Parts: sequence; C-alpha cells; structure tokens
Amino acid sequence: MTAILISEVGPRDGLQSTHRIMPLDAKKAWIKAEAEAGVREIEVGSFVPPSLLPQLADTAELVAYAKALPGLNVVALVPNAKGAVRAAEAGVHGMSIPFSMSETHSIKNVRKTHAEMIAEITEVARIAGDASIHFAVGLSTAFGCTMEGAVPEDRVVRLAEAAVAAGARELSLSDTTGYADPAQVKRLVRKVKAAVGEEKLTTLHLHNTRGLGLANALAGLEEGITTLDASLGGIGGCPFAPGASGNIVTEDLVFMLNSMGYDTGVDLEKLLEVRKIVAAALPDEPLYGFTPDAGLTLDYDTRGKA
Amino acid sequence: MTAILISEVGPRDGLQSTHRIMPLDAKKAWIKAEAEAGVREIEVGSFVPPSLLPQLADTAELVAYAKALPGLNVVALVPNAKGAVRAAEAGVHGMSIPFSMSETHSIKNVRKTHAEMIAEITEVARIAGDASIHFAVGLSTAFGCTMEGAVPEDRVVRLAEAAVAAGARELSLSDTTGYADPAQVKRLVRKVKAAVGEEKLTTLHLHNTRGLGLANALAGLEEGITTLDASLGGIGGCPFAPGASGNIVTEDLVFMLNSMGYDTGVDLEKLLEVRKIVAAALPDEPLYGFTPDAGLTLDYDTRGKA
Repeated sequence: MTAILISEVGPRDGLQSTHRIMPLDAKKAWIKAEAEAGVREIEVGSFVPPSLLPQLADTAELVAYAKALPGLNVVALVPNAKGAVRAAEAGVHGMSIPFSMSETHSIKNVRKTHAEMIAEITEVARIAGDASIHFAVGLSTAFGCTMEGAVPEDRVVRLAEAAVAAGARELSLSDTTGYADPAQVKRLVRKVKAAVGEEKLTTLHLHNTRGLGLANALAGLEEGITTLDASLGGIGGCPFAPGASGNIVTEDLVFMLNSMGYDTGVDLEKLLEVRKIVAAALPDEPLYGFTPDAGLTLDYDTRGKA
Repeated sequence: MTAILISEVGPRDGLQSTHRIMPLDAKKAWIKAEAEAGVREIEVGSFVPPSLLPQLADTAELVAYAKALPGLNVVALVPNAKGAVRAAEAGVHGMSIPFSMSETHSIKNVRKTHAEMIAEITEVARIAGDASIHFAVGLSTAFGCTMEGAVPEDRVVRLAEAAVAAGARELSLSDTTGYADPAQVKRLVRKVKAAVGEEKLTTLHLHNTRGLGLANALAGLEEGITTLDASLGGIGGCPFAPGASGNIVTEDLVFMLNSMGYDTGVDLEKLLEVRKIVAAALPDEPLYGFTPDAGLTLDYDTRGKA
C-alpha cells in the first residue's frame, strides 16, 4: 500500500480566517485528538505578527505542546525571515513560506515583489538550515489568482526553479483560490517535477472553493503527489483572496484515500470525533464535509483491502 | 476536444425524493431553461405508478413538452414492462430500467429477484425495440449497498453480461448509495467494458453522498466514460436506500469539465441561472454546489483552451 501523508492545516489555514479566536486549550485538544486519530503532520500555526493575526498568537506555545505528542511532525508557516527566527526558536520540525505566483497577490499579501520574495526565501533557508529544520516553499496562487486571473504555467515553473535555487528543500503547489481543475493539476505537477526533480515536489495544498478539491487531489496522486494538505471540517481560506474558501475536508479525504487502499494511518472513526472539539470551540463556524453526515459505508473495513 | 454528454437527471432522480411536488409549469420552465443552457439530454421523469411517486405523475406531459425543444434527447426511467409501454406511448427518445446489483435492494425496491429482473429487462427490450426507442439498463448499487454492504465486482460483471444478453443497448454503472471510490470506479468500469464491450458501457450515475462524486467522475472519464448523469443543485437520492443523498451537482461538474477542456456544450452562466427556477419552486429543498456560491474564475473563458 502506498503511504500518503495527510498534513492537517486547519489550526493554521483554518483558524487564520475565523472571526472568533479559538482558545489555546481547545487548539491543544484538537491537535492531540487528531494526532491520536493517526494524523502524522499538523501545521499548528503561523509566525506572523500577533497584531496581524491574533487568532494565531499562541503558535509558539502550540509548537511546544505538539512536539511532546509522539510521532507527530510539527510544522508552522512563516511569512518572512523574522517569522523564521521565531519558528526556529520555538523548535518546529519544519517551516514553510508561502510564495505567491501572482505578483499582485504577493504585493497585496506580504508587500513583496517576486525578487524580494526570492531574497526572503534565501534568508529563511539559511535560518532553517542553521537550525537543521526542514524548509519548504509553498507556491501559492499557482493555479490562478483572484486578482490577476490566469497564472502562466511557465512562470510557475520558473519561480519553482528559483525557489529551489534559493534553498527550498521541498515545494508544494497551492490552489489558494480554488481555481484548479484536474487537467491543470496534472499538467503543472508534471512540468514542475520535470524542472526541479521528482522528489522536490511532494505536496498539494487544495481548496474546495468550486467543489473540485478531491478530484484535484486524485489528479495529484496520479502524478505521484504523496502529501496532501487538508483541514478538519474544511474550515479556512485566505483572508487576502476574496472568495477563496475552505481547504479540502480532512474527513472526506481520509474516506477517499482509505477506501482506495492508500495507507494514511488515520482512523476515520476517531477523526470524525475530533469535529466535536472544533464545533464546540467555534460554534459560529460552518463545518463542511459529506462523510461526517453520511457515516462510513457498511463495507468500509474491507474497502481497498483486496 | 472530447465531447462529454451531461445527462440531467434532476427532474427524475431529484424530484422523486422531494416532499413537495414541483408544479408542472415549474418543471417545464426548468427543462426549457436547462436545454437552452446547452444540456443535451434530460431524464424528465419516471413511468412508475403515480400512487407510488405522485411527484412524477406528469411524466408523459413532460415528455411531450420536452420533445418540442430543439436538439434535446428526452429520456425517462421505467421500472418494468408496464412502465415501458407507457414510455413508448409517450414517445420518449430513450428509456432506461434500473437493475439493482444487490438482490436485497432489488426485492425491497421493486419486489423482484435478479432472475425476475432479467425476464423484465427482456420484455422491456422487446417493447423498446418494437418502438425503435433506445434502451439502457442502469446497474444500480453497483459499488455497494446500504443493506448488503459490499457488492462483489464479479457479480456486477456477470449481471452486466446478462443485461446485454437480455437486450440492453447500453449500460450505466450507478453509485446509488454513494459508496464508490475512484479506484473502484476505474476497476469496475474496466472489468465491465472488458466483459460487454467498450461501446456498451458509456455512462456513470454518481451520487455525492461522501463528497467523492467529482473524483469518481474523473476516474470514469479516465476510463473512457463519455456520459455523466448529474442533478441541478445536487438534489435527489434514493428513497429506498437510506443515507443515499444527492446526485453530483450539474453546475460543479460543468465547471470541472469545461475547465478541463472537454466539450459539454453547456453555458455555465446560463446554467447557474436555472437554479433560481428550482429554488423558487422548491423553497424547502437545499440546493448543493460550490461553483454557484464562488462564481466563475476570472480566467474561466480561457481555461482548457490552450
């Protein structure tokens, strides 16, 4: 059975767009329960200035807490070198920086041109390298941008190469805006892998904005993607990309992968219980997902085992 | 560009499970507007006894109405030979009979064993043949059953062969219960095509019960499926299969296929307008779909055109 890593990004990508701040204790309960359900990587937060995202102000405490959980890979987002220093101090296992393929979005989101971002990535790579921390670059708006529209694939390939040259150990392709379609996913994964090497592009970060999230995930799997970001209950989005809502739903993704016979290590029944923690802590927030309502299939335990 | 036929089944599969009966005028407005949006096939109803499904009692009138719309293929479901006679009298372009791969479900749903169903299919094939009407058999619960659980693939293959021998011009595989996963879709499509011939299995009928609908559709496309059933707003389900809700959403499917560069012939902006007719006529019924909320992408007109 092929192993697929599900990287839970809800505590970061989900919570950064909620109005209500989830209390630290609830975040800890969520992370603990999800790790116990078998999720092996969690992005616990982001080292952005607390004044910008008060929802994630407790990221350093969460890193310390999550690192004590057995077998969990604890990752965090960093917007820049300052954040990378804080992430390294907190002792993350891995850090990643988003690099928007749309320069308009990059300037709007982090006030940096592409050239300035490459300089920042070089600096973050140095900080991560000095601390022996895994470092990834997330190529955001890679499938289209709500400000620029189409993002040329050649540009993504060129910037992917630049990010690797600047020190990225690994890349992910992010459909920040929910623009991707499966044919595009296949094409772009193939092109970027061809440019930077098979092993450098492992991850897709998908949103379910137009309902295509799992179809895009399938397309990625067929091109050798082995890590999929997802968010419990599909919460999340990008506050700077209007209309970009909801990551793919961890529960539905796990149902799909486990049914297909992939090894995710995740116990779906336990995972479904984790929703209660999130729902209780964020009563105003809609939780997405179909499997939670429908329940497991009668033959779930034998699916994909043939 | 590969042409994909989208077969709108909402007026049948959707409306058979609504509590409120949609008025005939609203059904006509729906069918007309969807045909004008470019949908080339609509299952307008079912020739079941009106006492069983009063929601579909006006199917013959709808057939007459829809046949006057230019370029529309007008199909209806028939549960048995009696229904086939009525469908032929009404002058449908095509009729299909559901044949449940789960004998338990078959007995519960239409009170017939598999052997009795084969006899019925033979009779319906004769009626359709005499009237020169296209005749398809829908292999329902092909991916699993809410009563029996797993449905062995060898059984589906064997019954597919029996349905063709009994006179089916074409088969569809139906995920009546929302059990299918993409790996299973690929496997089963391949096996059935190998058994009955590539050209006999053209269609998938999918539900989005666990959110995998479009991923399953993609899996089918990759195995040469050229017709996909879908329901506007994802309404519908099987009243005899508890927990089996909602067909895949026509709007999201069209967004996916058009974005990928398939030729569906459907104008998505016009299609999105059709929701208003359904929403107004069925105010209590939830409408599903993500694209209607998110809207088209900025680059929609150029996607898939490269």
